[in-house]
Amino acid sequence: MKEIKGGVCAPKGFLAGGIRCGIKAGSQKKDLALIYSQKPCNAAGVFTSNKVKAASVRVSQESVADGKLRAIIANSGNANACTGQAGMDAARRMACAAASALSSIEPSDVAVASTGVIGVPLPVEAIEKNIGALKAALRNDEQGHADALEAIMTTDTRKKEFAVEIEIGGNTARIGAMTKGSGMIHPNMATMLAFITTDAAVERDALDSALRRAVKRSFNRLTVDGDTSTNDMVLVMANGEAGNTSLTVESAGYEIFSGALEKVCVELTRKMARDGEGATKLVTVTVTGAGNEETAEALAKSVASSSLVKAACFGADANWGRVLCAMGYAGVDFDPEKTDVSFKSSSGEIEVCKDGGTVQFSEEKAKEILSREEIEILIRLGEGDAKASVWGCDLTYDYVKINGDYRS
Amino acid sequence: MKEIKGGVCAPKGFLAGGIRCGIKAGSQKKDLALIYSQKPCNAAGVFTSNKVKAASVRVSQESVADGKLRAIIANSGNANACTGQAGMDAARRMACAAASALSSIEPSDVAVASTGVIGVPLPVEAIEKNIGALKAALRNDEQGHADALEAIMTTDTRKKEFAVEIEIGGNTARIGAMTKGSGMIHPNMATMLAFITTDAAVERDALDSALRRAVKRSFNRLTVDGDTSTNDMVLVMANGEAGNTSLTVESAGYEIFSGALEKVCVELTRKMARDGEGATKLVTVTVTGAGNEETAEALAKSVASSSLVKAACFGADANWGRVLCAMGYAGVDFDPEKTDVSFKSSSGEIEVCKDGGTVQFSEEKAKEILSREEIEILIRLGEGDAKASVWGCDLTYDYVKINGDYRS
Repeated sequence: MKEIKGGVCAPKGFLAGGIRCGIKAGSQKKDLALIYSQKPCNAAGVFTSNKVKAASVRVSQESVADGKLRAIIANSGNANACTGQAGMDAARRMACAAASALSSIEPSDVAVASTGVIGVPLPVEAIEKNIGALKAALRNDEQGHADALEAIMTTDTRKKEFAVEIEIGGNTARIGAMTKGSGMIHPNMATMLAFITTDAAVERDALDSALRRAVKRSFNRLTVDGDTSTNDMVLVMANGEAGNTSLTVESAGYEIFSGALEKVCVELTRKMARDGEGATKLVTVTVTGAGNEETAEALAKSVASSSLVKAACFGADANWGRVLCAMGYAGVDFDPEKTDVSFKSSSGEIEVCKDGGTVQFSEEKAKEILSREEIEILIRLGEGDAKASVWGCDLTYDYVKINGDYRS
Repeated sequence: MKEIKGGVCAPKGFLAGGIRCGIKAGSQKKDLALIYSQKPCNAAGVFTSNKVKAASVRVSQESVADGKLRAIIANSGNANACTGQAGMDAARRMACAAASALSSIEPSDVAVASTGVIGVPLPVEAIEKNIGALKAALRNDEQGHADALEAIMTTDTRKKEFAVEIEIGGNTARIGAMTKGSGMIHPNMATMLAFITTDAAVERDALDSALRRAVKRSFNRLTVDGDTSTNDMVLVMANGEAGNTSLTVESAGYEIFSGALEKVCVELTRKMARDGEGATKLVTVTVTGAGNEETAEALAKSVASSSLVKAACFGADANWGRVLCAMGYAGVDFDPEKTDVSFKSSSGEIEVCKDGGTVQFSEEKAKEILSREEIEILIRLGEGDAKASVWGCDLTYDYVKINGDYRS
């Protein structure tokens, strides 16, 4: 597997583009994106489990239900959430506008995404008026990808993208992706969008399985402030242009493909955690030696979500007591007296807790290790060989500032 | 029911005292407390569900197992947690010291509590040396209560106490209580202690039922930073000195007693939320019209725990979108389209969301309402008549400062 450039346009046969249509009021930034496959695609999607679903989520769930997609149309500046029946109509009109502009495709081949302010009606006329310009903006290169990515960003401070090239049975295939998401911001529920393209040939069921497993081990293990776990929408389109024999879950190449898809999702997850609101550090919590993966994940999530652990990370404080406490209320069984904790970063690794109790360690060295921009909390249980990593960030004054300020 | 003074010494036959024995290093503050009943008591206790239990929790669980207690000995400055077998021995030695000083009682009649720094051995010799002075400090008045309360405080900035007087079948009975807890602070897991005394005569099972119900609807609905829910230890002692016929769950007076116990616990819970680390506001989230109480509680807890809602409270921001989002990931079913949200305080009440959608409201009036020190988020579902309230506080810069600073 090697990392390449180009994002969603890296795989063969995918175009992308982004323009400004004026939904982001008072801004010159792009706010309307399109991703399009020249050939039919198998598709899969994972959608927020939040009971409050934006109209775009519900329309996209319908579009993906038959396992086929040709395009994704997405806007920023308005989440089209809590907008009732009018919001549902607007989301469908977005799909129709994209379908008619792209000629030979149906609205049900189009997924719809929105991100931005909640409770405000979506000005879908602005989208319909500009659909020709959006289609004209489609490109099959890195610029097309970059324009589309810009058009879906809201409070993100960094572009979050990734692409890889792999070999499946002698064929070269690529997976490319873009994502947005930095925290729940203002009244905005549509905060996490991830669009993934691949030219690998993958059967519908295999694509769905691979996506679900990748999402489980990446986006569903991301916590910025506990409110980001809505995991709004992750979509993958596979057009088969790489020419390999279409993969099923039994194919020899399936593990290579799904491993690469997971890698892409994990990289995007790490970038989102690092770009968490107010964050100064990416914090990775890894639990190993667990009896099963669910236990490892629950423990890691509890630690990564703990306000006290996050604040300690901000202060570069080697506070293992808070780590143990967060594990203790995670709701799963483990043996504190077999638990070891260490902190790690590019500056080294230091053990701070052994068998659930104190050890001598250099506070100075610990502080140095925890002062890096990427730190890890490593937790070793003595109960099996299951493991899980969860990604988050520190809790800072800036988080409070960003989210405590009066809503504009 | 009327509020009275005197805390745990208000009910007849209870003494309390507090001294300094030097566990809180470098401080002149009191750090050792004793509560004692001159007559045998029925007792009940609720202990942390955190898998990581301090030695004091485990020893107290044993002492309370037979439904009988005569005394509680508690220290601050050291949590005696993550201290292995030596910690268990130290906790038992505390119980033995109290039992021998108080003469006619057994160590198994004594509950033990500790709060303070974690992972450091408890200097139990300091307790043993000073046990005579502790016994001599016992008083049956408000001062004895106040000294004991001071001795269990750590980062609490306010004294948290409450007492009531009730009538049970012509007899006057009292319930008094003290509590400490303000947030998980430094490496300290033993953060919430509540000691309740009553002179009502209550059978063991009835006392246990009443306590569990009161705790469920109070301490278990408290969230300062998500880490406070360890609910370390709540103990109640009932010595029967009020002279009423001993209550069972079928007694006419049981509801009066258990209602009063719940009221006491709720008042202490509100005080703890208000004293949350860095808090400037007590935030009460009340869900009404739910299909069942569990749903109401889960929704309220999710909203009260949300970093984004808490930050919005700090900023006096009428951000109903974050409230709905937090409800949406609570993990329970509800209908967003029947959900109304309003904000309330002493300045008035304002509706900000109707049927899950936007309504016109005055941002200025909302800001005024949310700028008070005690605010309420009222959520009405249209699905039944169950309700629940959860208490928390806002998320402020001071929380980050208190918890992000390097551990001293």
